[in-house]
Amino acid sequence: MRNAFHDELDGISESLIQMAILVRDAITDATTALLGSDLALAEKVIAADDVIDSIQHDLDARTINLMARQQPVASDLRTLVTSLRMSADLERMGDLAHHVAKQARMRYPNCAVPAELIPTITEMGRVARGIIDKLSSVMEHRDTTRALEIEVDDDEMDKLHRQLIATLLDDNWSHGIEAAIDMTLLGRYYERCADHAVSIARRVYFLVTGEYASIRP
Amino acid sequence: MRNAFHDELDGISESLIQMAILVRDAITDATTALLGSDLALAEKVIAADDVIDSIQHDLDARTINLMARQQPVASDLRTLVTSLRMSADLERMGDLAHHVAKQARMRYPNCAVPAELIPTITEMGRVARGIIDKLSSVMEHRDTTRALEIEVDDDEMDKLHRQLIATLLDDNWSHGIEAAIDMTLLGRYYERCADHAVSIARRVYFLVTGEYASIRP
Repeated sequence: MRNAFHDELDGISESLIQMAILVRDAITDATTALLGSDLALAEKVIAADDVIDSIQHDLDARTINLMARQQPVASDLRTLVTSLRMSADLERMGDLAHHVAKQARMRYPNCAVPAELIPTITEMGRVARGIIDKLSSVMEHRDTTRALEIEVDDDEMDKLHRQLIATLLDDNWSHGIEAAIDMTLLGRYYERCADHAVSIARRVYFLVTGEYASIRP
Repeated sequence: MRNAFHDELDGISESLIQMAILVRDAITDATTALLGSDLALAEKVIAADDVIDSIQHDLDARTINLMARQQPVASDLRTLVTSLRMSADLERMGDLAHHVAKQARMRYPNCAVPAELIPTITEMGRVARGIIDKLSSVMEHRDTTRALEIEVDDDEMDKLHRQLIATLLDDNWSHGIEAAIDMTLLGRYYERCADHAVSIARRVYFLVTGEYASIRP
Protein backbone atom coordinates (compact mmCIF):
# COMPACT_ATOMS: atom_id res chain seq x y z
CA MET A 1 0.00 0.00 0.00
CA ARG A 2 1.23 3.49 -0.87
CA ASN A 3 1.50 5.82 2.04
CA ALA A 4 2.95 9.17 3.05
CA PHE A 5 6.28 7.53 3.83
CA HIS A 6 6.67 6.24 0.30
CA ASP A 7 5.64 9.59 -1.13
CA GLU A 8 8.42 11.20 0.84
CA LEU A 9 10.85 8.49 -0.30
CA ASP A 10 9.84 9.24 -3.89
CA GLY A 11 10.48 12.91 -3.25
CA ILE A 12 13.98 12.07 -2.06
CA SER A 13 14.63 9.98 -5.17
CA GLU A 14 13.44 12.86 -7.34
CA SER A 15 15.78 15.29 -5.61
CA LEU A 16 18.69 12.90 -6.18
CA ILE A 17 17.85 12.75 -9.89
CA GLN A 18 17.55 16.51 -9.95
CA MET A 19 21.05 16.72 -8.41
CA ALA A 20 22.38 14.32 -11.05
CA ILE A 21 20.95 16.47 -13.84
CA LEU A 22 22.51 19.61 -12.37
CA VAL A 23 25.85 17.82 -12.06
CA ARG A 24 25.61 16.60 -15.65
CA ASP A 25 24.95 20.15 -16.85
CA ALA A 26 27.77 21.49 -14.66
CA ILE A 27 30.39 19.12 -16.09
CA THR A 28 29.10 19.72 -19.62
CA ASP A 29 29.19 23.51 -19.25
CA ALA A 30 32.55 23.38 -17.47
CA THR A 31 34.01 21.43 -20.40
CA THR A 32 32.56 23.88 -22.92
CA ALA A 33 33.92 26.81 -20.89
CA LEU A 34 37.32 25.14 -20.65
CA LEU A 35 37.63 24.34 -24.33
CA GLY A 36 36.17 27.64 -25.55
CA SER A 37 37.77 29.90 -22.90
CA ASP A 38 34.27 31.09 -22.06
CA LEU A 39 34.58 33.10 -18.86
CA ALA A 40 30.87 33.81 -18.42
CA LEU A 41 30.03 30.12 -18.68
CA ALA A 42 32.84 29.20 -16.24
CA GLU A 43 31.45 31.74 -13.75
CA LYS A 44 27.99 30.25 -14.20
CA VAL A 45 29.27 26.76 -13.31
CA ILE A 46 31.18 28.11 -10.32
CA ALA A 47 28.06 29.87 -9.01
CA ALA A 48 25.83 26.86 -9.69
CA ASP A 49 27.88 24.71 -7.33
CA ASP A 50 26.23 26.48 -4.39
CA VAL A 51 22.85 25.37 -5.71
CA ILE A 52 24.00 21.74 -5.83
CA ASP A 53 25.41 22.02 -2.31
CA SER A 54 22.19 23.49 -0.98
CA ILE A 55 20.06 20.80 -2.61
CA GLN A 56 22.28 18.21 -0.94
CA HIS A 57 21.91 19.95 2.39
CA ASP A 58 18.14 20.07 2.12
CA LEU A 59 17.94 16.50 0.82
CA ASP A 60 20.03 15.09 3.65
CA ALA A 61 17.97 16.97 6.22
CA ARG A 62 14.78 15.50 4.75
CA THR A 63 16.32 12.02 4.68
CA ILE A 64 17.41 12.14 8.32
CA ASN A 65 14.10 13.66 9.33
CA LEU A 66 12.27 10.82 7.59
CA MET A 67 14.45 8.27 9.39
CA ALA A 68 13.63 9.87 12.73
CA ARG A 69 9.89 10.12 12.16
CA GLN A 70 9.22 6.85 10.39
CA GLN A 71 11.88 4.59 11.86
CA PRO A 72 12.14 2.47 8.73
CA VAL A 73 13.70 -0.97 8.81
CA ALA A 74 15.08 -3.38 6.22
CA SER A 75 14.96 -2.17 2.64
CA ASP A 76 13.48 1.26 3.40
CA LEU A 77 16.25 2.00 5.85
CA ARG A 78 18.83 0.76 3.35
CA THR A 79 17.32 3.05 0.71
CA LEU A 80 17.58 6.07 2.98
CA VAL A 81 21.17 5.33 4.00
CA THR A 82 22.04 4.85 0.33
CA SER A 83 20.43 8.21 -0.49
CA LEU A 84 22.77 9.91 1.94
CA ARG A 85 25.73 8.26 0.27
CA MET A 86 24.56 9.05 -3.23
CA SER A 87 24.00 12.69 -2.40
CA ALA A 88 27.57 12.84 -1.05
CA ASP A 89 28.90 11.37 -4.31
CA LEU A 90 26.84 13.79 -6.40
CA GLU A 91 27.93 16.74 -4.31
CA ARG A 92 31.55 15.75 -4.87
CA MET A 93 30.96 15.39 -8.62
CA GLY A 94 29.60 18.93 -8.56
CA ASP A 95 32.81 20.05 -6.82
CA LEU A 96 34.87 18.44 -9.56
CA ALA A 97 32.90 20.28 -12.28
CA HIS A 98 33.50 23.43 -10.26
CA HIS A 99 37.27 22.68 -10.25
CA VAL A 100 37.22 22.30 -14.05
CA ALA A 101 35.43 25.64 -14.39
CA LYS A 102 37.94 27.31 -12.06
CA GLN A 103 40.77 26.03 -14.23
CA ALA A 104 39.06 27.61 -17.26
CA ARG A 105 38.71 30.90 -15.38
CA MET A 106 42.29 30.83 -14.09
CA ARG A 107 43.79 30.66 -17.60
CA TYR A 108 41.30 33.04 -19.23
CA PRO A 109 41.63 34.64 -21.82
CA ASN A 110 43.97 31.80 -22.80
CA CYS A 111 42.72 28.27 -23.22
CA ALA A 112 43.96 25.97 -20.43
CA VAL A 113 43.99 23.06 -22.89
CA PRO A 114 46.73 22.91 -25.56
CA ALA A 115 45.51 22.16 -29.10
CA GLU A 116 46.63 18.53 -29.20
CA LEU A 117 44.67 17.72 -26.05
CA ILE A 118 41.41 19.32 -27.15
CA PRO A 119 40.11 16.05 -28.66
CA THR A 120 40.94 14.11 -25.46
CA ILE A 121 39.26 16.62 -23.15
CA THR A 122 36.29 16.88 -25.52
CA GLU A 123 35.94 13.11 -25.26
CA MET A 124 36.37 13.10 -21.48
CA GLY A 125 33.58 15.68 -21.23
CA ARG A 126 31.40 13.65 -23.57
CA VAL A 127 31.98 10.40 -21.66
CA ALA A 128 31.33 12.16 -18.32
CA ARG A 129 28.06 13.57 -19.63
CA GLY A 130 27.03 10.19 -21.05
CA ILE A 131 27.82 8.42 -17.77
CA ILE A 132 25.77 10.89 -15.72
CA ASP A 133 22.86 10.70 -18.18
CA LYS A 134 22.91 6.94 -17.84
CA LEU A 135 23.20 7.29 -14.09
CA SER A 136 20.04 9.40 -13.89
CA SER A 137 18.21 6.64 -15.68
CA VAL A 138 19.78 3.97 -13.43
CA MET A 139 18.61 5.95 -10.40
CA GLU A 140 15.14 6.62 -11.76
CA HIS A 141 14.34 3.10 -13.00
CA ARG A 142 16.67 1.09 -10.73
CA ASP A 143 18.06 -0.28 -13.96
CA THR A 144 20.77 -2.80 -13.09
CA THR A 145 21.73 -3.49 -16.72
CA ARG A 146 22.62 0.13 -17.31
CA ALA A 147 24.30 0.23 -13.89
CA LEU A 148 26.73 -2.40 -15.16
CA GLU A 149 27.24 -0.48 -18.41
CA ILE A 150 28.58 2.44 -16.39
CA GLU A 151 31.53 0.26 -15.37
CA VAL A 152 32.38 -0.15 -19.04
CA ASP A 153 31.97 3.58 -19.67
CA ASP A 154 34.36 4.19 -16.80
CA ASP A 155 36.94 1.99 -18.54
CA GLU A 156 36.61 4.35 -21.50
CA MET A 157 37.30 7.30 -19.18
CA ASP A 158 40.37 5.54 -17.76
CA LYS A 159 41.63 4.93 -21.30
CA LEU A 160 41.23 8.63 -22.14
CA HIS A 161 43.04 9.48 -18.93
CA ARG A 162 46.00 7.25 -19.85
CA GLN A 163 45.99 8.82 -23.33
CA LEU A 164 46.14 12.28 -21.76
CA ILE A 165 49.14 11.33 -19.59
CA ALA A 166 50.87 9.74 -22.61
CA THR A 167 50.47 13.02 -24.52
CA LEU A 168 52.10 14.93 -21.67
CA LEU A 169 55.00 12.48 -21.63
CA ASP A 170 55.50 12.54 -25.39
CA ASP A 171 58.75 14.12 -26.62
CA ASN A 172 56.64 16.45 -28.74
CA TRP A 173 55.03 18.04 -25.66
CA SER A 174 56.02 21.69 -26.04
CA HIS A 175 53.79 23.44 -23.53
CA GLY A 176 56.02 23.17 -20.53
CA ILE A 177 55.40 22.32 -16.91
CA GLU A 178 52.52 24.65 -16.09
CA ALA A 179 50.28 23.24 -18.81
CA ALA A 180 51.33 19.71 -17.78
CA ILE A 181 50.26 20.43 -14.18
CA ASP A 182 46.94 21.87 -15.40
CA MET A 183 46.29 18.86 -17.59
CA THR A 184 47.27 16.37 -14.87
CA LEU A 185 44.74 17.94 -12.52
CA LEU A 186 42.04 18.24 -15.16
CA GLY A 187 42.50 14.60 -16.13
CA ARG A 188 42.12 13.62 -12.52
CA TYR A 189 38.92 15.69 -12.09
CA TYR A 190 37.20 13.91 -14.99
CA GLU A 191 38.44 10.52 -13.88
CA ARG A 192 37.26 11.04 -10.29
CA CYS A 193 33.91 12.31 -11.52
CA ALA A 194 33.40 9.03 -13.39
CA ASP A 195 34.57 7.04 -10.34
CA HIS A 196 31.86 8.64 -8.22
CA ALA A 197 29.27 7.78 -10.86
CA VAL A 198 30.46 4.16 -10.74
CA SER A 199 30.14 4.23 -6.99
CA ILE A 200 26.50 5.44 -7.23
CA ALA A 201 25.67 2.86 -9.91
CA ARG A 202 27.06 0.12 -7.64
CA ARG A 203 24.93 1.34 -4.76
CA VAL A 204 21.79 1.12 -6.93
CA TYR A 205 22.83 -2.34 -8.09
CA PHE A 206 23.27 -3.46 -4.49
CA LEU A 207 19.94 -1.98 -3.38
CA VAL A 208 18.11 -3.86 -6.13
CA THR A 209 19.94 -7.19 -6.09
CA GLY A 210 21.49 -7.42 -2.62
CA GLU A 211 24.74 -8.31 -4.38
CA TYR A 212 27.82 -6.38 -5.32
CA ALA A 213 28.13 -5.46 -8.98
CA SER A 214 31.06 -7.22 -10.56
CA ILE A 215 31.65 -7.47 -14.23
CA ARG A 216 35.41 -7.31 -13.91
CA PRO A 217 37.60 -10.36 -13.69
CA MET B 1 21.19 5.75 32.05
CA ARG B 2 23.71 3.58 30.22
CA ASN B 3 22.22 0.78 28.19
CA ALA B 4 23.12 -1.76 25.52
CA PHE B 5 22.41 0.80 22.82
CA HIS B 6 25.01 3.19 24.19
CA ASP B 7 27.52 0.37 24.57
CA GLU B 8 27.10 -0.41 20.89
CA LEU B 9 27.40 3.27 20.05
CA ASP B 10 30.67 3.36 22.01
CA GLY B 11 31.85 0.32 20.06
CA ILE B 12 31.19 2.18 16.83
CA SER B 13 33.13 5.20 18.05
CA GLU B 14 36.02 2.95 19.01
CA SER B 15 36.09 1.39 15.55
CA LEU B 16 36.14 4.84 13.97
CA ILE B 17 39.13 5.78 16.12
CA GLN B 18 40.79 2.50 15.22
CA MET B 19 40.27 3.36 11.53
CA ALA B 20 41.79 6.81 12.10
CA ILE B 21 44.87 5.26 13.70
CA LEU B 22 45.31 2.83 10.80
CA VAL B 23 44.95 5.70 8.34
CA ARG B 24 47.49 7.76 10.26
CA ASP B 25 49.96 4.86 10.16
CA ALA B 26 49.23 4.28 6.47
CA ILE B 27 49.99 7.86 5.45
CA THR B 28 53.07 7.91 7.68
CA ASP B 29 54.42 4.65 6.28
CA ALA B 30 53.53 5.66 2.73
CA THR B 31 55.52 8.87 3.16
CA THR B 32 58.50 6.97 4.57
CA ALA B 33 58.30 4.46 1.70
CA LEU B 34 58.07 7.27 -0.82
CA LEU B 35 61.01 9.25 0.52
CA GLY B 36 63.21 6.21 1.19
CA SER B 37 62.23 4.17 -1.90
CA ASP B 38 61.25 1.38 0.47
CA LEU B 39 59.42 -1.20 -1.62
CA ALA B 40 58.55 -3.55 1.24
CA LEU B 41 56.98 -0.73 3.23
CA ALA B 42 55.06 0.50 0.17
CA GLU B 43 53.69 -3.03 -0.33
CA LYS B 44 52.71 -3.15 3.32
CA VAL B 45 50.66 0.06 2.98
CA ILE B 46 49.05 -1.19 -0.22
CA ALA B 47 48.02 -4.45 1.46
CA ALA B 48 46.82 -2.68 4.62
CA ASP B 49 44.25 -0.71 2.64
CA ASP B 50 42.12 -3.86 2.43
CA VAL B 51 42.07 -3.98 6.22
CA ILE B 52 40.82 -0.39 6.41
CA ASP B 53 38.18 -1.13 3.78
CA SER B 54 36.97 -4.19 5.64
CA ILE B 55 36.77 -2.34 8.96
CA GLN B 56 34.65 0.28 7.22
CA HIS B 57 32.43 -2.40 5.76
CA ASP B 58 31.91 -4.07 9.12
CA LEU B 59 31.45 -0.75 10.90
CA ASP B 60 28.80 0.48 8.46
CA ALA B 61 26.94 -2.82 8.74
CA ARG B 62 26.91 -2.51 12.53
CA THR B 63 25.77 1.12 12.31
CA ILE B 64 22.88 0.35 9.97
CA ASN B 65 21.96 -2.70 12.02
CA LEU B 66 21.85 -0.57 15.15
CA MET B 67 19.63 1.97 13.39
CA ALA B 68 17.24 -0.79 12.36
CA ARG B 69 17.05 -2.45 15.76
CA GLN B 70 17.04 0.57 18.05
CA GLN B 71 15.33 3.15 15.88
CA PRO B 72 17.17 6.03 17.48
CA VAL B 73 15.92 9.58 17.19
CA ALA B 74 17.42 13.02 17.68
CA SER B 75 21.05 13.11 18.73
CA ASP B 76 21.58 9.33 18.67
CA LEU B 77 20.35 9.13 15.10
CA ARG B 78 22.53 12.09 14.17
CA THR B 79 25.51 10.37 15.74
CA LEU B 80 24.93 7.21 13.71
CA VAL B 81 24.46 9.08 10.43
CA THR B 82 27.62 11.02 11.18
CA SER B 83 29.49 7.75 11.82
CA LEU B 84 28.61 6.57 8.34
CA ARG B 85 29.97 9.79 6.89
CA MET B 86 33.12 9.72 8.97
CA SER B 87 33.87 6.13 8.00
CA ALA B 88 33.51 7.15 4.33
CA ASP B 89 35.98 10.01 4.84
CA LEU B 90 38.44 7.74 6.65
CA GLU B 91 38.15 5.07 3.98
CA ARG B 92 38.96 7.68 1.35
CA MET B 93 41.95 8.90 3.36
CA GLY B 94 43.16 5.30 3.40
CA ASP B 95 42.82 5.22 -0.40
CA LEU B 96 44.93 8.34 -0.68
CA ALA B 97 47.70 6.79 1.47
CA HIS B 98 47.45 3.76 -0.80
CA HIS B 99 47.91 6.03 -3.84
CA VAL B 100 51.04 7.54 -2.28
CA ALA B 101 52.42 4.04 -1.65
CA LYS B 102 51.65 3.00 -5.24
CA GLN B 103 53.57 6.01 -6.49
CA ALA B 104 56.56 4.89 -4.38
CA ARG B 105 56.29 1.38 -5.83
CA MET B 106 55.89 2.60 -9.40
CA ARG B 107 59.18 4.52 -9.35
CA TYR B 108 61.13 1.94 -7.34
CA PRO B 109 64.14 1.55 -7.18
CA ASN B 110 64.26 5.25 -7.94
CA CYS B 111 62.83 7.81 -5.58
CA ALA B 112 59.65 9.43 -6.96
CA VAL B 113 60.54 12.66 -5.16
CA PRO B 114 63.37 14.83 -6.53
CA ALA B 115 65.87 16.04 -3.92
CA GLU B 116 64.62 19.63 -3.72
CA LEU B 117 61.09 18.45 -2.91
CA ILE B 118 62.07 16.04 -0.16
CA PRO B 119 61.68 18.69 2.57
CA THR B 120 58.21 19.68 1.27
CA ILE B 121 56.94 16.09 1.09
CA THR B 122 58.49 15.33 4.48
CA GLU B 123 56.54 18.26 5.88
CA MET B 124 53.32 17.26 4.12
CA GLY B 125 53.64 13.79 5.65
CA ARG B 126 54.35 15.28 9.06
CA VAL B 127 51.38 17.67 8.87
CA ALA B 128 49.09 14.85 7.66
CA ARG B 129 50.15 12.66 10.56
CA GLY B 130 49.69 15.49 13.04
CA ILE B 131 46.23 16.28 11.70
CA ILE B 132 45.09 12.66 11.96
CA ASP B 133 46.54 12.32 15.46
CA LYS B 134 44.60 15.40 16.48
CA LEU B 135 41.54 14.05 14.72
CA SER B 136 41.61 10.82 16.76
CA SER B 137 41.59 12.90 19.89
CA VAL B 138 38.79 15.12 18.52
CA MET B 139 36.75 11.99 17.80
CA GLU B 140 37.50 10.34 21.12
CA HIS B 141 36.87 13.33 23.38
CA ARG B 142 34.51 15.32 21.14
CA ASP B 143 37.01 18.12 21.56
CA THR B 144 35.72 21.15 19.66
CA THR B 145 38.78 23.29 20.39
CA ARG B 146 41.09 20.83 18.68
CA ALA B 147 38.48 20.40 15.91
CA LEU B 148 38.96 24.08 15.10
CA GLU B 149 42.75 23.71 15.26
CA ILE B 150 42.56 21.20 12.40
CA GLU B 151 41.34 24.01 10.15
CA VAL B 152 44.55 25.88 10.90
CA ASP B 153 46.65 22.77 10.30
CA ASP B 154 44.92 22.39 6.95
CA ASP B 155 46.01 25.93 6.04
CA GLU B 156 49.56 24.74 6.68
CA MET B 157 48.98 21.82 4.29
CA ASP B 158 47.61 24.19 1.64
CA LYS B 159 50.69 26.37 2.04
CA LEU B 160 52.97 23.36 1.52
CA HIS B 161 50.92 22.41 -1.51
CA ARG B 162 51.37 25.88 -3.05
CA GLN B 163 55.09 25.65 -2.25
CA LEU B 164 55.27 22.31 -4.06
CA ILE B 165 53.60 23.74 -7.18
CA ALA B 166 55.90 26.79 -7.07
CA THR B 167 58.92 24.46 -7.06
CA LEU B 168 57.62 22.66 -10.14
CA LEU B 169 57.12 26.00 -11.92
CA ASP B 170 60.53 27.37 -10.98
CA ASP B 171 62.98 27.85 -13.86
CA ASN B 172 65.41 25.63 -11.99
CA TRP B 173 63.10 22.60 -12.21
CA SER B 174 65.24 20.08 -14.10
CA HIS B 175 63.33 16.83 -13.62
CA GLY B 176 61.05 17.10 -16.59
CA ILE B 177 57.40 16.39 -17.12
CA GLU B 178 57.10 12.91 -15.64
CA ALA B 179 58.37 13.97 -12.23
CA ALA B 180 56.16 17.08 -12.42
CA ILE B 181 53.09 14.86 -13.04
CA ASP B 182 54.09 12.59 -10.14
CA MET B 183 54.54 15.52 -7.82
CA THR B 184 51.29 17.19 -8.89
CA LEU B 185 49.38 14.02 -8.04
CA LEU B 186 51.25 13.42 -4.80
CA GLY B 187 50.61 16.98 -3.71
CA ARG B 188 46.94 16.51 -4.39
CA TYR B 189 46.80 13.24 -2.40
CA TYR B 190 48.19 14.90 0.74
CA GLU B 191 46.00 17.94 0.31
CA ARG B 192 42.84 15.85 -0.15
CA CYS B 193 43.75 13.70 2.85
CA ALA B 194 43.85 16.83 5.00
CA ASP B 195 40.56 18.05 3.48
CA HIS B 196 38.83 14.84 4.56
CA ALA B 197 40.22 15.27 8.08
CA VAL B 198 38.78 18.80 8.14
CA SER B 199 35.47 17.41 7.02
CA ILE B 200 35.43 14.88 9.90
CA ALA B 201 36.47 17.53 12.42
CA ARG B 202 33.59 19.72 11.23
CA ARG B 203 31.16 16.85 11.66
CA VAL B 204 32.29 16.35 15.26
CA TYR B 205 31.99 20.08 15.87
CA PHE B 206 28.46 20.08 14.50
CA LEU B 207 27.45 17.02 16.55
CA VAL B 208 28.63 18.67 19.75
CA THR B 209 27.53 22.26 19.20
CA GLY B 210 24.73 22.02 16.62
CA GLU B 211 26.53 24.77 14.73
CA TYR B 212 28.84 24.80 11.76
CA ALA B 213 32.50 25.33 12.55
CA SER B 214 33.72 28.60 11.20
CA ILE B 215 36.93 30.23 12.20
CA ARG B 216 37.54 31.72 8.79
CA PRO B 217 36.50 35.23 7.81
